[in-house]
Amino acid sequence: MRVLGIDCGSERTGYGVIDSDGLRHVLVAAGTIVTRPRDPMPKRLSVIAAGLREVIAVHSPASSAVEEVFHAANSQSAIKLAQVRGVALLVAAEAGLEVGEYSALVIKKSVVGYGMATKEQVQFMMRSLLGPDTPSHLPDACDALAASICHATHLNLNRVPA
Amino acid sequence: MRVLGIDCGSERTGYGVIDSDGLRHVLVAAGTIVTRPRDPMPKRLSVIAAGLREVIAVHSPASSAVEEVFHAANSQSAIKLAQVRGVALLVAAEAGLEVGEYSALVIKKSVVGYGMATKEQVQFMMRSLLGPDTPSHLPDACDALAASICHATHLNLNRVPA
Repeated sequence: MRVLGIDCGSERTGYGVIDSDGLRHVLVAAGTIVTRPRDPMPKRLSVIAAGLREVIAVHSPASSAVEEVFHAANSQSAIKLAQVRGVALLVAAEAGLEVGEYSALVIKKSVVGYGMATKEQVQFMMRSLLGPDTPSHLPDACDALAASICHATHLNLNRVPA
Repeated sequence: MRVLGIDCGSERTGYGVIDSDGLRHVLVAAGTIVTRPRDPMPKRLSVIAAGLREVIAVHSPASSAVEEVFHAANSQSAIKLAQVRGVALLVAAEAGLEVGEYSALVIKKSVVGYGMATKEQVQFMMRSLLGPDTPSHLPDACDALAASICHATHLNLNRVPA
């Protein structure tokens, strides 16, 4: 199954697309949609929506995963992030994609085995799992790939008969 | 100028459209986009986006206004609200509308004269300003109309030479 992971951010939104049977994961594409901090938020949201729609049009994922937003230390940052997340959920829904929602803790646990893993550990694991073409220098793309792997793993687990 | 005001909410999103020269305001349309609490959030966001796009297509506003989201008492509510707000900002931007953003305090101050006005006071004032066709029984539609009046008033003030 082809899975799109999205890591929301008002400045950089990461995306990662993998093909997965729930155990083996193959990198399809990953990158970052960058917005200009000087642009007003509505403009930035439309850049993010256009970028995600293009990724979906080019790679035709069958499902998607987005990280949950928690009350960040700074509530204004959490609100900005949630605005971007609303746009990501909308774009996925309008493309007919089911959306899996996972906390950062669950995502890190499923790819690194440790919920409090650092960004660097996630980047290292993405390269180990997905090979040398992984853009491991892009933390947002790696977080998006981690979300897609987490979702693929959970989808598979759900299919195992009890 | 025709102005669209939007009052975001994950269960009920109010909209209000007025024609205004900055001093006199005429009601064009107002109502509420309702989503089903049992639906997953991506589905609810797509219902809200479709509803707002229809209002814009039917009434062709020239500008729009959306209330700012503050850290609500409950941060999970603020995050839900911000997701809807992201969708509203996106829909406005994709329709080519400028978006004015105002705090609840500024909106209430500009329509009731008092920043801590109750919902009932806003509803009463909307009916007083916009006449008997105002859906004053719909608090979300009234909040949206208040945002549109606030924006129209501010646009006009900005045009007055210093």
